[in-house]
Amino acid sequence: MTRRAGQVYAHVGQAFAPQPYDVVVLGAGRMGSLAAHVLMWQRPDLKLLLLDKGGLPNEEGATILAPGLWTMLDVPEDRRAQADFTRRLIVGELSVEEGGLGTGGPHDAPTVQRDLVELLSDREDGSVSINEIAGLPADLIDSTHLSHARVHPDALTYSPAALTIRAAQSAVRAGADLMLNVEARPTPNGVYLSRLSVANTHQIIVHETHQLEAGQVIVAAGAAGPSLVEEALGLVTHHSRAYRQLPRLNVPTNERTPIIRACGLTLRPNAGGFTVIPRVHHRDPHGYAPTGGKLSGVPVGLRRETLEDILAALDALPALATEALELGRSLIDVPAAWLALPAGGWPMYQQLSERHWLLLGGEKADVVGAAVARELAAALRLTGA
Amino acid sequence: MTRRAGQVYAHVGQAFAPQPYDVVVLGAGRMGSLAAHVLMWQRPDLKLLLLDKGGLPNEEGATILAPGLWTMLDVPEDRRAQADFTRRLIVGELSVEEGGLGTGGPHDAPTVQRDLVELLSDREDGSVSINEIAGLPADLIDSTHLSHARVHPDALTYSPAALTIRAAQSAVRAGADLMLNVEARPTPNGVYLSRLSVANTHQIIVHETHQLEAGQVIVAAGAAGPSLVEEALGLVTHHSRAYRQLPRLNVPTNERTPIIRACGLTLRPNAGGFTVIPRVHHRDPHGYAPTGGKLSGVPVGLRRETLEDILAALDALPALATEALELGRSLIDVPAAWLALPAGGWPMYQQLSERHWLLLGGEKADVVGAAVARELAAALRLTGA
Repeated sequence: MTRRAGQVYAHVGQAFAPQPYDVVVLGAGRMGSLAAHVLMWQRPDLKLLLLDKGGLPNEEGATILAPGLWTMLDVPEDRRAQADFTRRLIVGELSVEEGGLGTGGPHDAPTVQRDLVELLSDREDGSVSINEIAGLPADLIDSTHLSHARVHPDALTYSPAALTIRAAQSAVRAGADLMLNVEARPTPNGVYLSRLSVANTHQIIVHETHQLEAGQVIVAAGAAGPSLVEEALGLVTHHSRAYRQLPRLNVPTNERTPIIRACGLTLRPNAGGFTVIPRVHHRDPHGYAPTGGKLSGVPVGLRRETLEDILAALDALPALATEALELGRSLIDVPAAWLALPAGGWPMYQQLSERHWLLLGGEKADVVGAAVARELAAALRLTGA
Repeated sequence: MTRRAGQVYAHVGQAFAPQPYDVVVLGAGRMGSLAAHVLMWQRPDLKLLLLDKGGLPNEEGATILAPGLWTMLDVPEDRRAQADFTRRLIVGELSVEEGGLGTGGPHDAPTVQRDLVELLSDREDGSVSINEIAGLPADLIDSTHLSHARVHPDALTYSPAALTIRAAQSAVRAGADLMLNVEARPTPNGVYLSRLSVANTHQIIVHETHQLEAGQVIVAAGAAGPSLVEEALGLVTHHSRAYRQLPRLNVPTNERTPIIRACGLTLRPNAGGFTVIPRVHHRDPHGYAPTGGKLSGVPVGLRRETLEDILAALDALPALATEALELGRSLIDVPAAWLALPAGGWPMYQQLSERHWLLLGGEKADVVGAAVARELAAALRLTGA
């Protein structure tokens, strides 16, 4: 069967005639776009609508800021197959017949094989002297504090945003409709849409609303997903979220620079510098509004908890004590996103009703997210051809 | 040496003539009052000033709401001596010569020996059938979910607030001065005092300020302590805090009702009902303002995180699903306090400078707080006689 590409509704100027859909995917981040892609690849006859409140991927969402760091390290036995499937999709090993998305285009941030180097304060099993590690930037590390290292050669850095765009484009080419700049909430029979526009006064306004019928609704709204299903459907889930900041460390890196783990921080080479990835220690409580901290009494953009983690690493990673670290002056200066924390810590899907599903990625979506999106697509109860 | 009792400055009408003190204790909660008591007992010649922002103990502080639950359960080997000392002080076993405070008066909430009963979903080592446990209120527990129990006979319930008042009174009788309704912050040479008063318009105003010299300053301000020393002295510590709510469960109890642990909750018999003590899972982030949650869309006073813990226990403890649980309509309806979370989890003291000390109690102050306050008193560098 050949089929025409789907319609893209990027703005309210493009008229939308409501019609029933087989599947509506609420959220065009990584998890939602991958689910839409797999569904359309499995069932090209599906009427599927992929929605997002912002662009693709949403500039405020977790996908665009995700570190894009794949490694088999820390993956337990029973998740290895998921991780390997995700790796094959990322590097373009998966053929189109298997649901692959090819490799990124020439303008995408490249996928790069790198070592992941764990820095240690002492000799441990399988460690070598830090002097034997190639590619470590000068002045980053104090080797009297971190004298040894363990090297994991299987890691990758990639762009989750680029992968997400390829997935959504694949879904649209296969016939899915895509609507951007739309707020949506699940309803018992489908979804309620509010198409957003910008007024002359630069305020965001609701241009039109639609009640849409949908056979199946996948809520893939990231950290907002659990509260969305709770408010709209009254279903309490046990997932939570955390506001993760990813400050930039301007120490020169290149394609041969390894990923570095030390003192609970991960340094991911990114566009000529590093992205500092702090540990997600625990959820942030309901009602928490992120706040910048203070360093020696001066307001900075980094939140207190992340500052503490960085302060604890200053002796071992002295570059963090220099101007190379972008602390910012207020919260908006530091790249950050609300990260879903699915119960159990791993990406997951959950059936909420006959019609509704929740799909959550979170911190480990870089490693197994694609596999879990595919599993949801397989689990969906689709009627028809 | 006989000595006159110290002066109590309860309100700004009582004139205060600033003079140098050997020791100023900032905070008349449990930890500060106990430290003041031990110091005066050891060294009756000391000029000591005990301060509090509110009354004694402060109505907004953690002491007045502390569960007052002593048990050797969960106390590691190296803390047993601290726990035993604390128990002896609580029950009045410690003689006055050893720094004891006697037993509570007739109007104090009594200290009661009780069993602590851990309810289990299955038979485990050392467990018995739940039917063999005496004193469990009817309709509290679903014995199909919680069929077994382990009994720990060594627990006590007591009033930390009453103990605190006895400690502060003992210090004053021995010669310490006590000032209430005063805000204080440490300074390099002592403390800066702002005596508070209430204006005709019911606003709290600063009536007068004093710069006081002090040989040693003990910051015993509970959850506010770490930020106080950070702001005043620029000393960053790694302690944190959490907003703990202690909702009331109106299921009848008496002096023979055991303390109950089940599903991560502790139910402490208290004034004819139970106090529900949720687990403190983790710190609350800097800048968090407590917010009430919603239950089936209706605003309640319990925060979301505590609601989730209670929801998870509903099947096993069906009384939590009834009106016996006081959920409140907004935050102020639920008894709660900011709890210090000392790094390491146990009460501790820390020398910050030649002159300044931080004393923190937190969740385990019920069990070992008195011993740690005494250790600080012993560690203090006191000059003179």
